[in-house]
Amino acid sequence: MADPLDISQRKKDHLALCAGDKVGFRDKTALFEQCELVHCALPEMHADEVDSRVELLGKTLAAPVVISAMTGGTDEAAKINQDLAQVADELGLAIGLGSQRAMFERPETAWTFAVRDRAPNVLLFGNLGLVQARKMSTEEIQGLVDEVGADALCIHLNPAMEIVQPGGDRDFSGGLEVFRRLVEELRVPVIAKETGCGISRGVAQMIRSTGVEHFDVSGSGGTSWVAVEAHRADENQKALAEELWDWGIPTAASVLQLRGLGVKAIATGGLRSGSHVAKAVALGAVAGGLAAPVLKAHRAGGIEGARVFLRGVISTVRSLMLLTGSRTVAELQRAQMMLGPDLARWQP
Amino acid sequence: MADPLDISQRKKDHLALCAGDKVGFRDKTALFEQCELVHCALPEMHADEVDSRVELLGKTLAAPVVISAMTGGTDEAAKINQDLAQVADELGLAIGLGSQRAMFERPETAWTFAVRDRAPNVLLFGNLGLVQARKMSTEEIQGLVDEVGADALCIHLNPAMEIVQPGGDRDFSGGLEVFRRLVEELRVPVIAKETGCGISRGVAQMIRSTGVEHFDVSGSGGTSWVAVEAHRADENQKALAEELWDWGIPTAASVLQLRGLGVKAIATGGLRSGSHVAKAVALGAVAGGLAAPVLKAHRAGGIEGARVFLRGVISTVRSLMLLTGSRTVAELQRAQMMLGPDLARWQP
Amino acid sequence: MADPLDISQRKKDHLALCAGDKVGFRDKTALFEQCELVHCALPEMHADEVDSRVELLGKTLAAPVVISAMTGGTDEAAKINQDLAQVADELGLAIGLGSQRAMFERPETAWTFAVRDRAPNVLLFGNLGLVQARKMSTEEIQGLVDEVGADALCIHLNPAMEIVQPGGDRDFSGGLEVFRRLVEELRVPVIAKETGCGISRGVAQMIRSTGVEHFDVSGSGGTSWVAVEAHRADENQKALAEELWDWGIPTAASVLQLRGLGVKAIATGGLRSGSHVAKAVALGAVAGGLAAPVLKAHRAGGIEGARVFLRGVISTVRSLMLLTGSRTVAELQRAQMMLGPDLARWQP
Amino acid sequence: MADPLDISQRKKDHLALCAGDKVGFRDKTALFEQCELVHCALPEMHADEVDSRVELLGKTLAAPVVISAMTGGTDEAAKINQDLAQVADELGLAIGLGSQRAMFERPETAWTFAVRDRAPNVLLFGNLGLVQARKMSTEEIQGLVDEVGADALCIHLNPAMEIVQPGGDRDFSGGLEVFRRLVEELRVPVIAKETGCGISRGVAQMIRSTGVEHFDVSGSGGTSWVAVEAHRADENQKALAEELWDWGIPTAASVLQLRGLGVKAIATGGLRSGSHVAKAVALGAVAGGLAAPVLKAHRAGGIEGARVFLRGVISTVRSLMLLTGSRTVAELQRAQMMLGPDLARWQP
Ligand SMILES: Cc1cc2nc3c(=O)[nH]c(=O)nc-3n(C[C@H](O)[C@H](O)[C@@H](O)COP(=O)(O)O)c2cc1C
Ligand SMILES: Cc1cc2nc3c(=O)[nH]c(=O)nc-3n(C[C@H](O)[C@H](O)[C@@H](O)COP(=O)(O)O)c2cc1C
Ligand SMILES: Cc1cc2nc3c(=O)[nH]c(=O)nc-3n(C[C@H](O)[C@H](O)[C@@H](O)COP(=O)(O)O)c2cc1C
Ligand SMILES: Cc1cc2nc3c(=O)[nH]c(=O)nc-3n(C[C@H](O)[C@H](O)[C@@H](O)COP(=O)(O)O)c2cc1C
Repeated sequence: MADPLDISQRKKDHLALCAGDKVGFRDKTALFEQCELVHCALPEMHADEVDSRVELLGKTLAAPVVISAMTGGTDEAAKINQDLAQVADELGLAIGLGSQRAMFERPETAWTFAVRDRAPNVLLFGNLGLVQARKMSTEEIQGLVDEVGADALCIHLNPAMEIVQPGGDRDFSGGLEVFRRLVEELRVPVIAKETGCGISRGVAQMIRSTGVEHFDVSGSGGTSWVAVEAHRADENQKALAEELWDWGIPTAASVLQLRGLGVKAIATGGLRSGSHVAKAVALGAVAGGLAAPVLKAHRAGGIEGARVFLRGVISTVRSLMLLTGSRTVAELQRAQMMLGPDLARWQP
Repeated sequence: MADPLDISQRKKDHLALCAGDKVGFRDKTALFEQCELVHCALPEMHADEVDSRVELLGKTLAAPVVISAMTGGTDEAAKINQDLAQVADELGLAIGLGSQRAMFERPETAWTFAVRDRAPNVLLFGNLGLVQARKMSTEEIQGLVDEVGADALCIHLNPAMEIVQPGGDRDFSGGLEVFRRLVEELRVPVIAKETGCGISRGVAQMIRSTGVEHFDVSGSGGTSWVAVEAHRADENQKALAEELWDWGIPTAASVLQLRGLGVKAIATGGLRSGSHVAKAVALGAVAGGLAAPVLKAHRAGGIEGARVFLRGVISTVRSLMLLTGSRTVAELQRAQMMLGPDLARWQP
Repeated sequence: MADPLDISQRKKDHLALCAGDKVGFRDKTALFEQCELVHCALPEMHADEVDSRVELLGKTLAAPVVISAMTGGTDEAAKINQDLAQVADELGLAIGLGSQRAMFERPETAWTFAVRDRAPNVLLFGNLGLVQARKMSTEEIQGLVDEVGADALCIHLNPAMEIVQPGGDRDFSGGLEVFRRLVEELRVPVIAKETGCGISRGVAQMIRSTGVEHFDVSGSGGTSWVAVEAHRADENQKALAEELWDWGIPTAASVLQLRGLGVKAIATGGLRSGSHVAKAVALGAVAGGLAAPVLKAHRAGGIEGARVFLRGVISTVRSLMLLTGSRTVAELQRAQMMLGPDLARWQP
Repeated sequence: MADPLDISQRKKDHLALCAGDKVGFRDKTALFEQCELVHCALPEMHADEVDSRVELLGKTLAAPVVISAMTGGTDEAAKINQDLAQVADELGLAIGLGSQRAMFERPETAWTFAVRDRAPNVLLFGNLGLVQARKMSTEEIQGLVDEVGADALCIHLNPAMEIVQPGGDRDFSGGLEVFRRLVEELRVPVIAKETGCGISRGVAQMIRSTGVEHFDVSGSGGTSWVAVEAHRADENQKALAEELWDWGIPTAASVLQLRGLGVKAIATGGLRSGSHVAKAVALGAVAGGLAAPVLKAHRAGGIEGARVFLRGVISTVRSLMLLTGSRTVAELQRAQMMLGPDLARWQP
């Protein structure tokens, strides 16, 4: 089992690195610049008629915006989780907690994941790595979900990160079986989530076959977790991490890959604005999520900074719904767009 | 109702900003560089045989060139309108007045739109925003048309601009109904006109169904009205304006989108030369229009500056007609061209 | 009739400008970089077995290389014509004289076009503008041909140049009729030749119908004659020349346009090396021609400079024949190549 | 026969130049950046289950990695050959010796090619130029193979290099016949190998018809042998070498060209990392090879430097097998990839 202290230090390092500018992809973007929404000069509605609500996992969001899973396990993490959860609740967004592995291995850190006091109604996602979940019983996992009051559980896939991480897990077998078990036995829905490398059509089909209906593609172009680990790796793994720095499927491409599979896709990874969220939805996602930009806004301006930033995101999404003539999110999903060749290539 | 003073100040700000270089699109062009006219080495005509005349809205232009709607409401505006109208009349071009909302709300500024003294024969377009027209009776609108002696009325669409503008209108419902009413009741033809974001095929079809036959696509790539408002916006709206700065359909793309709909398209937005006018016509427009470049020429050299600039535009158009072997504008509309992929994508 | 002195001065200006670096196309190339010949690792021949000879207009060239029409009319021009003709004769290439209009209007300059003493066997092209030829009788034209002992006559098309040239000809009517007359009445074959703007498929078909079988596409990407005139133009025409600076069909594109018409195409305009010549042939030309680079080599190193430069061109052509496994020029015309999208678009 | 001293000096020059940075292609890459492997988020295996072994020419490599033919004939070469062969043996890779022409012309240098003492089990390729092989009897060639204990013989094709090389061979006839003879009479298999210009589908088909089943495409994008010779050429050949510097088929393109011909392709030329090896395999190669990067690693860090570098390459290949969900090299050959247009164009 990993050294708890180590986990705590890793989390701190992660936050500091992700709030900086040294862990972005180098020559790869999320490909949103290859997607252009088409202007509708005649929206035929009042701006306030725009209905940006979206049903997700049994709750209704005010806009298709998610604060992606980030942290937990330290005092700093607790503050972030609580502030962001409160803002999400206020604004009607969803929020994901960071990996609850810390909380499982060091139960005394459980409080850093507790946000229900500050965010009683928010749509809340728990989070656990597939490699960890594999070693745990369903009851143990259900315990983690219950303790934070999560509405659904993200099972994150991160093979690229694990193999460059000092002491990372290297056994990725039996993953499908875990999904099958959790879909059957867990009392909340499961979301299959990547962590910056995207989900291909083939992988989505495999996971879909276990009964999972929700995916967070977490594609390439934003925070590169391989890059994060590169900064912490020893000489040998550093070389590998340099090679894999830009590895992964760009987020917009991954959303395209999942079209027509009958799944609900959340698009995270490299979304930086409401335009990206709107494009992600037009490409087929049910919602778009952001992590690092929210973290930065919170670092710079505390809870109010995060609030202002996210209000701006929502406002841009709503404006773009109006300007594409989309009265509802369902209409935005059918909005006309022009795809550049680098993105179009990924269409199934 | 908006504060009249405010309107007057806005007009002044607009002119100053549009004559400068801070309100262009950032990463978007009108896409004329993606359209190449094919040289005809054997024109088989005398240069003077080139017939660049075009019939438009009951009058005959000497060349397919329009001075786009710009201003009104202030002393400076009056001078611009009168000088440019005179030049248009001299050279046989069309000209559009700026939005006559000012004149409706402050009848004492009506004289600043009056150009018939100086331009008795010019093809003259009145101008009114769709959101304003919606609140006015047809008689009030007919009054504005009559007072300036316009041959047709541009109804401009500007949702992007309205939503970033402090105090902008936010109700865009009922627009089609307005077009239907005006087509039926107004005594001059109606032109549906955007203001820098372009018109998509779908929107054109909707408006066409109300009986409107003329469109000014006013696409992206030239003056960005969102950018103009960004310079005047408060903190909140500034963020949105930054996001939407480059929003819109590039002008050349919008012209392509309207092909085959049986409408007459005027191409404005980002045309900077006679080459752009010629390309716009070859792409399917009946004429090309320019605003900011004419304003700049007038600012720099007064009426003579505008005259010289526009003569150059006409001369280039005529030269390119010769060099594409086009004896008439109708032939130029069928001239051979090569489209780059970023433009070709927009072909219906 | 133009002022003779003026013609003489123009010729001097032309040479100086063309030997400099201010008259190239700005944002347009001849598109040879969009054509890649495919390496043949197993040529199965001795390098000396490469047969680079080509039959053209009744003579046999040692390699498919032409020194394009450049000059005449001045002492400097005479020296250039004679030196280059001698080198062409030595190396077995073809050479074109500059426009013989000067010689017609000022018979005392005829000697500056006389190269047969120094180049008794070279394949020699006379040269006359279509607009001049139109005003001359066939006998007058035959006289010019005979006086220089030309094997064929290039009739050059240059409408773009004429319309930006101070006092340029503006009547381009009746051109086809001139070709028809000359094909019938002249005792040497006629070559239809552009002067830097290229020949489209449509134009080639029209001219082909008069009986002309040879074309020098003289496309865009090398010396821009509009640019040359821009340097000499007055204010008004300068603006037009700036607009038209890059006008024309890139040379490689023009060669592609003429495929399958049953004509022999010489490719000139922007060829700078033997690689360009080889690519031009692979694209369908019977030979490639160079003007400005030969002029520069002659300026820098006299007759020996031109000789060394042209030997290098031939040597590269022969090397590329070997490296594409082409034993003959006919095989090089069928060599495998990969076209980039900007060139492929021009395929008929 | 060439002056032996000259050969020895050439070898030294070659090593120095290839270890530097002045002999790369200028505007051409191996095109691996146009091939993107698709991430598999759910590999369903332990990292150690990845089976990167590959059968090649009767032996089993631990990973599909070859150290390409480089040197021989000098003391320095001997050291390189022996060190690299030992590392290849340790790591389970294949290695090629440099051209054995030196050893044939100067038998006293044979020891510089002898590596079996240090690498008893390694898959070892002998090497001889086609133009040399043509002048030798099969027994002489078999002698070279036997003396070094090679498992197969690379017959290298290098017409581009020969024609720019001072005193290079210029007779490329009868090559197919040589392949036919060696396939029939030699007691080890023959590999047809280029030297930096790639092998086209047509050439591969011709050579395949003689019975050769293995190809080392040695394409463009890495070390340019024309460039190497350019640095040593006299004035005349330097000009030709400059022209041909970038000549050749990019390595990734050449691998694509050979798909579906029923041949085993080794991809060398411009591979710089395990990612390139993995991509080469996904494009259809049985293995990827590197020369200059291994030379550089050896120069910088001796045998240990080469070892560390190659371990990194293997580790990256294995990681990418995991991350593409490829349990075996055969599965990697069928891995999903996205090709950019510049590479896709080369698909047969
Ligand atoms: C600081 C930080 C910590 C993260 N921690 C987790 C995590 O614990 N579990 C997880 O599934 N994803 C985690 N992610 C990934 C995000 O949830 C998300 O999927 C992602 O790709 C965000 O991209 P962005 O930062 O470019 O917006 C983290 C991201 C950041 C920036
Ligand atoms: C200073 C200025 C004022 C304008 N005012 C109006 C207006 O009142 N009504 C309107 O329909 N368009 C207006 N426009 C837009 C132009 O008519 C036109 O559609 C346009 O997009 C011009 O593009 P360009 O400036 O790039 O040539 C204005 C443009 C400028 C530059
Ligand atoms: C100095 C100079 C003078 C030229 N004069 C003539 C001419 O008199 N007649 C003609 O047909 N073309 C003339 N040309 C054009 C060339 O013959 C040729 O068609 C051309 O486009 C050469 O391109 P390049 O200079 O890029 O090689 C001239 C070109 C140059 C550089
Ligand atoms: C220093 C050096 C020497 C080489 N010598 C030979 C040789 O003797 N025979 C041969 O077939 N290829 C030779 N090659 C070519 C390589 O085997 C290989 O095919 C190649 O293209 C390597 O590309 P890279 O250096 O970009 O990895 C040599 C390459 C280098 C760098």
